[in-house]
Amino acid sequence: MFRVDLNSDLGESFGRYTLGNDDKIIPLITSANVACGFHASDPAVMETTVSRAKEAGIRVGAHPGFPDLMGFGRRNMNITPAEAKAYTLYQIGALSAFCRAQGVELQHVKPHGAFYNMAAKDYNLSKGICEGIYEFDKNLIVLALSGGELARAAKDMGLRTAMEVFADRAYEEDGTLVDRKKEGSMITDEEVAIARVVRMVKEKKVTAITGKDISIQADSVCVHGDGAKALAFVEKIRKAFAEEGIEISPLSEIV
Amino acid sequence: MFRVDLNSDLGESFGRYTLGNDDKIIPLITSANVACGFHASDPAVMETTVSRAKEAGIRVGAHPGFPDLMGFGRRNMNITPAEAKAYTLYQIGALSAFCRAQGVELQHVKPHGAFYNMAAKDYNLSKGICEGIYEFDKNLIVLALSGGELARAAKDMGLRTAMEVFADRAYEEDGTLVDRKKEGSMITDEEVAIARVVRMVKEKKVTAITGKDISIQADSVCVHGDGAKALAFVEKIRKAFAEEGIEISPLSEIV
Amino acid sequence: MFRVDLNSDLGESFGRYTLGNDDKIIPLITSANVACGFHASDPAVMETTVSRAKEAGIRVGAHPGFPDLMGFGRRNMNITPAEAKAYTLYQIGALSAFCRAQGVELQHVKPHGAFYNMAAKDYNLSKGICEGIYEFDKNLIVLALSGGELARAAKDMGLRTAMEVFADRAYEEDGTLVDRKKEGSMITDEEVAIARVVRMVKEKKVTAITGKDISIQADSVCVHGDGAKALAFVEKIRKAFAEEGIEISPLSEIV
Amino acid sequence: MFRVDLNSDLGESFGRYTLGNDDKIIPLITSANVACGFHASDPAVMETTVSRAKEAGIRVGAHPGFPDLMGFGRRNMNITPAEAKAYTLYQIGALSAFCRAQGVELQHVKPHGAFYNMAAKDYNLSKGICEGIYEFDKNLIVLALSGGELARAAKDMGLRTAMEVFADRAYEEDGTLVDRKKEGSMITDEEVAIARVVRMVKEKKVTAITGKDISIQADSVCVHGDGAKALAFVEKIRKAFAEEGIEISPLSEIV
Repeated sequence: MFRVDLNSDLGESFGRYTLGNDDKIIPLITSANVACGFHASDPAVMETTVSRAKEAGIRVGAHPGFPDLMGFGRRNMNITPAEAKAYTLYQIGALSAFCRAQGVELQHVKPHGAFYNMAAKDYNLSKGICEGIYEFDKNLIVLALSGGELARAAKDMGLRTAMEVFADRAYEEDGTLVDRKKEGSMITDEEVAIARVVRMVKEKKVTAITGKDISIQADSVCVHGDGAKALAFVEKIRKAFAEEGIEISPLSEIV
Repeated sequence: MFRVDLNSDLGESFGRYTLGNDDKIIPLITSANVACGFHASDPAVMETTVSRAKEAGIRVGAHPGFPDLMGFGRRNMNITPAEAKAYTLYQIGALSAFCRAQGVELQHVKPHGAFYNMAAKDYNLSKGICEGIYEFDKNLIVLALSGGELARAAKDMGLRTAMEVFADRAYEEDGTLVDRKKEGSMITDEEVAIARVVRMVKEKKVTAITGKDISIQADSVCVHGDGAKALAFVEKIRKAFAEEGIEISPLSEIV
Repeated sequence: MFRVDLNSDLGESFGRYTLGNDDKIIPLITSANVACGFHASDPAVMETTVSRAKEAGIRVGAHPGFPDLMGFGRRNMNITPAEAKAYTLYQIGALSAFCRAQGVELQHVKPHGAFYNMAAKDYNLSKGICEGIYEFDKNLIVLALSGGELARAAKDMGLRTAMEVFADRAYEEDGTLVDRKKEGSMITDEEVAIARVVRMVKEKKVTAITGKDISIQADSVCVHGDGAKALAFVEKIRKAFAEEGIEISPLSEIV
Repeated sequence: MFRVDLNSDLGESFGRYTLGNDDKIIPLITSANVACGFHASDPAVMETTVSRAKEAGIRVGAHPGFPDLMGFGRRNMNITPAEAKAYTLYQIGALSAFCRAQGVELQHVKPHGAFYNMAAKDYNLSKGICEGIYEFDKNLIVLALSGGELARAAKDMGLRTAMEVFADRAYEEDGTLVDRKKEGSMITDEEVAIARVVRMVKEKKVTAITGKDISIQADSVCVHGDGAKALAFVEKIRKAFAEEGIEISPLSEIV
């Protein structure tokens, strides 16, 4: 039988600012990446987010980001591997306090935004991140771009590693995501996007932007909850998975 | 036999900024209050500080503060008890990650600066702080102003509570610290200060600013490491304690 | 003829976070209080906000707040008058750069949230704020709670002072706002609220919560743009002003 | 006659944190680059720094940096040219408020740290910075790496541009600084360093790391005030300049 996790970024509100539709996306996913106060969120939001995830029975992961609230952690920052390790530890620890207070087990860690993208291409940075994760808890799952450097570093360190794929993104032949600035980088046809994901899960294959089929491991699909269209798309993915005999399960039951 | 803990604020550097003489004060104390990134410190500093404390064999506590780096957490902020709880959980969690990574057990929690002072006078705020501590770990020791509201809230919640006294501060009859703006608030004569602390530990008494003797519990004495004079004063306290048969022990062996 | 200004807080978005309906409220007001990056906003938002205000022909004021983004500047902070002066200068200067770049004249300064409320009750804090304003530009208008300490300090310093009133708030006999926690603090009946404001403008009188009529100066009315109801209320105020022969004009044409 | 400016970074303290020896370096320089609160400094520090510079009769410039206090603005951040413009305007404006309050004219703008280094290599980023400067005040001098992209963008926009050189750094043949990680990047022999600067000023030439002489324009030399050795080196430069008939003058008298 086929199994895949659906993950989404949650708890991105901050102080007076509300972001996202956490209540709407929570029932549709199995794993939540919870912001930890660097690129988004604050302690009160984190407490609420863990509580909502717990109530819905979905799994919680830490979503550490760059210390760049103004840029929502989406801007590349040249931090050292040692800083990456310390920032990861800090943020996992902060989130885990709310998990511990509520009797929730932390399932995984997925870096956010530019931290995720830079790590996918930089083994040393990834090693810093993974050291932080490993030293905090060897059993945490690292959720990383399928085939990227973070996944490689996590495996090298003996960490449980989950491969993440994107329904709406094109892939290069080497398995990296096509740069958003390049034409054809986004898969805009929803039917095509869904068919691609189903194939990734069942056949472990995807057609690269060049037309060539490449191997890909799909343990989790990243989905978004911002806007009615995004939510409708997640519903469609779920329906397709049901029809194709793909069970939606949290990461911890997959890797 | 008499026992007392010596505690000091550590790890208050931030990024490019260095503060304090951690290396000099560490050998003289038994418990370190480690800043957690709100009023001071950053993840890299926290990692280093826990490592130094571990190496020296002193105990580590979390030192959560107000989210006011510009004011070093020394300015009163009107946060709610719920915010106090969430801020406490966040900061304890962040520090505990570095402890966990290094195999160090977290011993205690002491709020910093204005957070400490406001809590000492505000039972509801203290209750918020203690809920955060309790939900994180029921065995953590709360280090609080002797006789203040934080100590009361901690006891009411069944938390282990350590009473902190100050060698260089005068006390009101009700056991609160004399406001720094008031004349006579500081005990400037070092011999007098030391004699007062020794008496607090051995007789559980101190002479209030009014001249009346009051009861006081002294589980820990707060000392400072900034400057040669402060360090020399700690040496004198240690010497006096040795002569008076007062053993210096970490909080966890006292309360 | 009667004249009054309508002011509203604008430009409170931050990074990825959007707040308020600036586009909707701008056509209805004459003066905008533009956040300056401490309690809300960032440089990009400030540039856009000044541009929108300029395009609409409304006047721009600086809206300095406490350095408390997490609390949206709504939490009391014990800063010194000297800090208040420096924080005010910093924020006015930052905003004025965008005004200068776009050929927009800065009209006024109104402290935000807890900074405004604390200043209304604290002459020394207000003096710090006014010194900052005075040293930056003697011709700036201070927009302050009618009858409060900020208004008094501004006048004492020879600054142009505009008195602000609230349609939806009850007043104590001494002219201060009734604490929000007290029953009857909010005027919930819109017709009553509007009649009160009209009377404040035309008769310079309002009925205090005790039932007694008190004197009040109304140079500007604070209105909100968050939500359809708030916007509809502003439309009603505008209609009532038109019917009552009250002209809506920017502060600079009133004081 | 030959003229050159000596510039140094000032006002880098923050809140409780003190950095640098402003009092010691001020008498030795002609132009101060004053931090503006993003990578270092706060409003109170800025007020004090402008006041000290004024008292000493040296010229004041804005030293805008990345919004990265934790990294002291020394880490590359991928901001857009539009963000660079807005961040520059914001910081210049904030500093200019303190200048205006004290009757000090703002002389120049020099980006800080990674902002400076990235701008030196990125024309588009530099254009964003220069637009901010131009829109604020066409007469401000841009202090930029001699021969770099920021200098080029500033000239293209018609801004007054001052070329900065470094005594202790080696140059590539194309006039860029040799990467610090490369061997030979630092000129460690003080006599050599001084001879090189003198030659840059008088002959407009310097020997690149390859051994080839290249042309270079030296309007200002960057010096540091941190530590006794750095201060002694500045004294030596000043002495050498005096002996060589090179007058030390502020930028505004040079470009």
